[in-house]
Amino acid sequence: MQYNIAVIKGDGIGPEIVTEAMKALEVVGEKFGHTFQFTECYAGGNAIDKYGIPLPQETLDICKASDSVLLGAVGGPKWDSVPSDKRPERALLGLRSGLGLFVNLRPAQMHAALAEACPIKPEIIGDGFDILVCRELTGDVYFGKRGRRESELGETGWDDMNYSVTEVERIGRRGFDMAMKRGKKLVSVDKANVLETSRVWRETMHKLREEYPEVEYQDMYVDNAAMQLVRNPGQFDVIVTGNLFGDILSDEASMITGSIGMLPSASIGESKLGMYEPIHGSAPDIAGKGIANPIATILSCAMMLRYSFGLGEEADCIEAAVEKALNDGHRTADIAKEGEKVLSTSEMGAIICANI
Amino acid sequence: MQYNIAVIKGDGIGPEIVTEAMKALEVVGEKFGHTFQFTECYAGGNAIDKYGIPLPQETLDICKASDSVLLGAVGGPKWDSVPSDKRPERALLGLRSGLGLFVNLRPAQMHAALAEACPIKPEIIGDGFDILVCRELTGDVYFGKRGRRESELGETGWDDMNYSVTEVERIGRRGFDMAMKRGKKLVSVDKANVLETSRVWRETMHKLREEYPEVEYQDMYVDNAAMQLVRNPGQFDVIVTGNLFGDILSDEASMITGSIGMLPSASIGESKLGMYEPIHGSAPDIAGKGIANPIATILSCAMMLRYSFGLGEEADCIEAAVEKALNDGHRTADIAKEGEKVLSTSEMGAIICANI
Ligand SMILES: CC(C)[C@H](C(=O)O)[C@@H](O)C(=O)O
Ligand SMILES: CC(C)[C@H](C(=O)O)[C@@H](O)C(=O)O
Repeated sequence: MQYNIAVIKGDGIGPEIVTEAMKALEVVGEKFGHTFQFTECYAGGNAIDKYGIPLPQETLDICKASDSVLLGAVGGPKWDSVPSDKRPERALLGLRSGLGLFVNLRPAQMHAALAEACPIKPEIIGDGFDILVCRELTGDVYFGKRGRRESELGETGWDDMNYSVTEVERIGRRGFDMAMKRGKKLVSVDKANVLETSRVWRETMHKLREEYPEVEYQDMYVDNAAMQLVRNPGQFDVIVTGNLFGDILSDEASMITGSIGMLPSASIGESKLGMYEPIHGSAPDIAGKGIANPIATILSCAMMLRYSFGLGEEADCIEAAVEKALNDGHRTADIAKEGEKVLSTSEMGAIICANI
Repeated sequence: MQYNIAVIKGDGIGPEIVTEAMKALEVVGEKFGHTFQFTECYAGGNAIDKYGIPLPQETLDICKASDSVLLGAVGGPKWDSVPSDKRPERALLGLRSGLGLFVNLRPAQMHAALAEACPIKPEIIGDGFDILVCRELTGDVYFGKRGRRESELGETGWDDMNYSVTEVERIGRRGFDMAMKRGKKLVSVDKANVLETSRVWRETMHKLREEYPEVEYQDMYVDNAAMQLVRNPGQFDVIVTGNLFGDILSDEASMITGSIGMLPSASIGESKLGMYEPIHGSAPDIAGKGIANPIATILSCAMMLRYSFGLGEEADCIEAAVEKALNDGHRTADIAKEGEKVLSTSEMGAIICANI
């Protein structure tokens, strides 16, 4: 079968890591008899340079016409002085809403081979943990109206935070579905003791809960969730939450793994079309040196195979190839300990391809 | 000199821990020649039981007429079925806005004697850390309008997030002032890449920064701040942020100390009147057993002496008394390791009083 993939290499280390990920996809394709057709397009800083805007319509059109999108990373200090509504990061928001990608899946897993890099004490981590943060991605205060007004207290900036029952239902269902496929535990995070938005969230989740009697469900306030992730990350299986709280908690959870250079993400919607990208940034300081770690991007391709193409076995194959590379002691600079041999981006990519 | 203190013992372990804190104040008063006049009043669950509402006007009046407020903790499962606008926690929000307490000071310090309880690895913590989170407390999405409306997506809950220049200026100044008294480093946390509220925040902070050339100032996005607290808490001195982000980050920072039962807080405003309370909750599961740790409440009294009464030496004296108790190996159940002798609430209180 042939799959059409829109490729946005992006800025900084984006091109280097995406190149390795494309190779990994090709090797998996050869092994399992699929063809991946790549169409490159531009978004972020490079699009600003080329077109004057972070997300050209052409890019959105190519993505919409594809079976999925592979993205490296966008942004960098070069575009720091660009006005905020034209920044590279706007491309991400435009792609999410333009493609209807309302679910962001962010696995936060500790890689056993990298346990030493985990900032949390081993007594707390025990055998490790495996959290899936399921963040709503096209609603909340991110996509409400906003502006400035005069009040008694002078000029005032405002943003409309909101969630509708329909929006909560569709992300909530994904949370429950993910929990059913995993450990059957779901924590829904909100701030219902203060926010009306959260009260709609919680009421809707409580209705959905009836449909999933097998899932052990729990409400948690966002402040408490921020604490519990540090206190005992092993208590979590799936966390479902809104866009703003998800932004904060998914990053906190990633940092707690200690393997932030290794973590992939998937942004999906109603259709098969999804966008897959590493969670790390464009790391402009090391761009072009060939030393970036391609693993998060390669693992993002595994998520693409699983969620957009329904190719579970192929996804497992990539994940096992990465696991083996790590267990065999292969390290890029970001995850190497003193004295360990350091691989380049393409060397790490080649080892993973060979393992596939 | 005589100081009038409104005392809200609150729910759960509140009465036990506040009793010890009052004793500590009395002993300090004797030593330094001050009189503390306590007036008890009700808020939270006990007020719901007594008056049907979490914050009776009488309580607010007594607090307003006092020089400061000492609060234990409010809430508990007993009031879980109360409608959300009448919950015990509403009392906190009502006291904060009613008394104009727009600054919440939350120190997150690792107690050297309790380093073992810190969830973060010693390699990361090094000599420990000492963060002061300066959270805005009477604005943001906590105190904006909110409600429900119909949209194309069905019933929708909404909340108005907002900050005015005036509000940011007054909390921002406190942040800079605190930094000047401490390590002269200030991190201002926002989400200016998405929110207009944050853009007003950031612009205003950048204007204030000119007035404090000695302070090393940095902007940080909230998602990054949530990561940096785990990655390297030692990089922070003072963090200033809005009400919602402050709620999340101050709790995360507290958990990272590993000494959550020991952390005090101060909520202050333009006048000398402030409200002082431990950051831990009402712990209904251990209430009435005389085993709760009174240290956070006693340290909250030290903050009261310092910030409301300008009694720095007296505050230092309480803090030194607590430090000595810990260094001498005295432990309540929550901080005792296996095999260590466990003190009751009143025994710990008595030891600290003796040290004073
Ligand atoms: C760049 C920014 C707008 C974005 C977000 O807040 O969603 C980023 O932090 C992320 O999580 O992908
Ligand atoms: C109880 C709740 C309303 C409150 C808040 O969010 O401010 C609490 O979490 C706190 O931080 O004191």
